[in-house]
Amino acid sequence: MKLYEKAPTPNSLRVSLFIAEKGIEIPRVDVDIRGGENVTDEFKAKSPNGKIPLLELDDETTICESVAICRYIDAAFPTNHHLFGEDALAIGQVEMWNRIVEFQGLYAAFQAFRNITGIYKDRERCVEAWGKESKQRLEEFLPELEKRLTTSPYVAGDKFSVADITAYVLCGFMKNLDLHLDESLPALLAWHRKISERPAFIEASTK
Amino acid sequence: MKLYEKAPTPNSLRVSLFIAEKGIEIPRVDVDIRGGENVTDEFKAKSPNGKIPLLELDDETTICESVAICRYIDAAFPTNHHLFGEDALAIGQVEMWNRIVEFQGLYAAFQAFRNITGIYKDRERCVEAWGKESKQRLEEFLPELEKRLTTSPYVAGDKFSVADITAYVLCGFMKNLDLHLDESLPALLAWHRKISERPAFIEASTK
Repeated sequence: MKLYEKAPTPNSLRVSLFIAEKGIEIPRVDVDIRGGENVTDEFKAKSPNGKIPLLELDDETTICESVAICRYIDAAFPTNHHLFGEDALAIGQVEMWNRIVEFQGLYAAFQAFRNITGIYKDRERCVEAWGKESKQRLEEFLPELEKRLTTSPYVAGDKFSVADITAYVLCGFMKNLDLHLDESLPALLAWHRKISERPAFIEASTK
Repeated sequence: MKLYEKAPTPNSLRVSLFIAEKGIEIPRVDVDIRGGENVTDEFKAKSPNGKIPLLELDDETTICESVAICRYIDAAFPTNHHLFGEDALAIGQVEMWNRIVEFQGLYAAFQAFRNITGIYKDRERCVEAWGKESKQRLEEFLPELEKRLTTSPYVAGDKFSVADITAYVLCGFMKNLDLHLDESLPALLAWHRKISERPAFIEASTK
């Protein structure tokens, strides 16, 4: 098994944090996405969405999409550390919060960054006005996340979950949009400090 | 337990098809979204994302986000009909394909529809150019889905899964963008006919 990734990108970080939380090791292959290594025919033959991260199993079966890789790992290496929730209610609530943070937070941040900067304009058409709109929606979402963390120790409830990983990756990525965590969002800031001290997060951030 | 929904909307249909496939009955409450019933303070107090569908449990705990509702139902009412995949590989592949169809297909269709028509301009800012770009990306995705269904009987592999539900809802919704299935996409058309004949799909479409 090996993981094709680009270490500083947010979706590769999501998978790295998940793997570190699960306490497993997977060999990595660095892919030069700025140079377009992921849009070659060879890579596209491996990856249904042409993107990294991409997990390749020993029989050459591949899984793309960061959350899908996490779900495969979660099912293939079962532990008592249930990052997708343990019982039915937790499973539903983790998926709910992971999707809320992903659609209203991380995906909005990606759309903002790509459309404002035009970083991949060699391979996609950009609409700058949508980039600015997406950034504004993200700025409107952060107080919603703050409100949630005022009443809940973790994003999806009483336990750490994959939704915390998604929110943590969002908090790091939004620096690219000149958005920063500060005392105006005290619960989010305190949660971020707490999360950053987890051994898996220290391990993943030093790689 | 009750389900707040609006019957003809795509995300309510996703949950209805899932419930019908699982063979369970849940009482429904119709919500007038065009009239803004879902953006009242009363509804927003129930739903973390302010959207329908929303599942309310008997203790008044709520779960929003259509896929999260499906995951709760899947875990709370276990059967041998594994719509999220049965073993680790299938679990990973179903999530992968469901996300590919959702992000590149259904979500693109929603962004196209909302930004082109301005249907919710009373509650969100629209960028028409992004609507048109999203429609074009959806038109570029359909041949990818066609290619997949040329080699696979169902979207995520050999078995029917939640990814087929997402793709089916996409095929119905895209009529709103004047996009239609026809003989230019023969594998997708054949798959759609096959899916439409499933008892759960006949049941859900006649409600």
